[in-house]
Amino acid sequence: MRFTEKLLAASEKNDSLLCVGLDTDISRLPKHLLNSDNPVLGFNRAIIEATADLVCAYKPNTAFYEAMGADGWRVLKQTIEAIPSHIPVIVDAKRGDIGNTARMYAQAFYRGLGADAVTVNPYMGFDALKPFLEYPDKCAFVLCLTSNAGAKDFQYLPSKGKPVYEHIAQKVVGWSKNGCCGLVVGATYPEQLRRIRQIAPKLPLLIPGIGVQGGDLEAAL
Amino acid sequence: MRFTEKLLAASEKNDSLLCVGLDTDISRLPKHLLNSDNPVLGFNRAIIEATADLVCAYKPNTAFYEAMGADGWRVLKQTIEAIPSHIPVIVDAKRGDIGNTARMYAQAFYRGLGADAVTVNPYMGFDALKPFLEYPDKCAFVLCLTSNAGAKDFQYLPSKGKPVYEHIAQKVVGWSKNGCCGLVVGATYPEQLRRIRQIAPKLPLLIPGIGVQGGDLEAAL
Repeated sequence: MRFTEKLLAASEKNDSLLCVGLDTDISRLPKHLLNSDNPVLGFNRAIIEATADLVCAYKPNTAFYEAMGADGWRVLKQTIEAIPSHIPVIVDAKRGDIGNTARMYAQAFYRGLGADAVTVNPYMGFDALKPFLEYPDKCAFVLCLTSNAGAKDFQYLPSKGKPVYEHIAQKVVGWSKNGCCGLVVGATYPEQLRRIRQIAPKLPLLIPGIGVQGGDLEAAL
Repeated sequence: MRFTEKLLAASEKNDSLLCVGLDTDISRLPKHLLNSDNPVLGFNRAIIEATADLVCAYKPNTAFYEAMGADGWRVLKQTIEAIPSHIPVIVDAKRGDIGNTARMYAQAFYRGLGADAVTVNPYMGFDALKPFLEYPDKCAFVLCLTSNAGAKDFQYLPSKGKPVYEHIAQKVVGWSKNGCCGLVVGATYPEQLRRIRQIAPKLPLLIPGIGVQGGDLEAAL
């Protein structure tokens, strides 16, 4: 089953467009969990159990697990295994490197961890993305316009009549075959989101930034 | 000791500008090593022992360890521990994410693994780099102009009279305090390397791409 089919099926089953992040910071866990053997996994399992009928995807963030060392990588794998198999897992890794390195990352996330999708960084261009696109039932979500303040530093630079992020959206549309690419676009920029949706009418969009970062749910939808 | 001081001391001691990568692919190891308990670590230790008087830095690449799962992260830590303490370790991770995530990555690499430096991706802008700059004796090497073919996709886009990668070099010069930033510039573009050195006369440069990728050592120097 292609990623887009799996995503659509999960979305329809739960009538949901919500992706729940699993960026679990051990220093912010409820105290009663800290006495258990594996508090982060326990917390993640409770979140998954409480939300599995409300979401269309889960998104664990590698940084929070890598900060725990080798054990963290094991907890990340156990977390992904705890997610019901019909719900897509997007590993938020934002990787991007030359071909043979990207091939290793794709192997780590798709084969090693069993993820359905991964977030990737476009700065190094097509050959850095290509190894992720060689898995026909997976999806690479490419950073396009991010929700943070620093997006203004380089993503908005004007080039040939349009900002850099629009160049990226257009290239990714050309690179995507059978739904193997998506785009990451911050909810904090609804007008730009509208324009990116015009450029990429068929690509799945991962839209962070609702809530604390100030993005508006209605406007994003 | 600041990173730049440690780098200079190692460089002077060994009369070397060479950084040795530790991108160890288990499928390409000599067969006699595969019978040992920890073939990747054994290979890395042999490389380190054979080169410790010839280099100014080592650069393990996280992808090759993550492809091994949780054990890989342990081997990465053991590899870094096997490097003599006076030689800087640059973890080639090319990370870049919003503030609280970047803080976790900085913690994973600087505290967890004990690295001296890390490669980072500039696409998400200053707030994605800031947590790496808060360690005064560490260094973040920011991707500027990379050595791969895909560099042409976005890094060369012209904006306000210069390519995107020159905008990045100029911004990083402004962000660097006391040698806490460096730049990654491919040896495959010696003319552009000259220009970036003019923009950033004091920043350490990490220059991949000599050899297989076609970069010329003399031209790069």
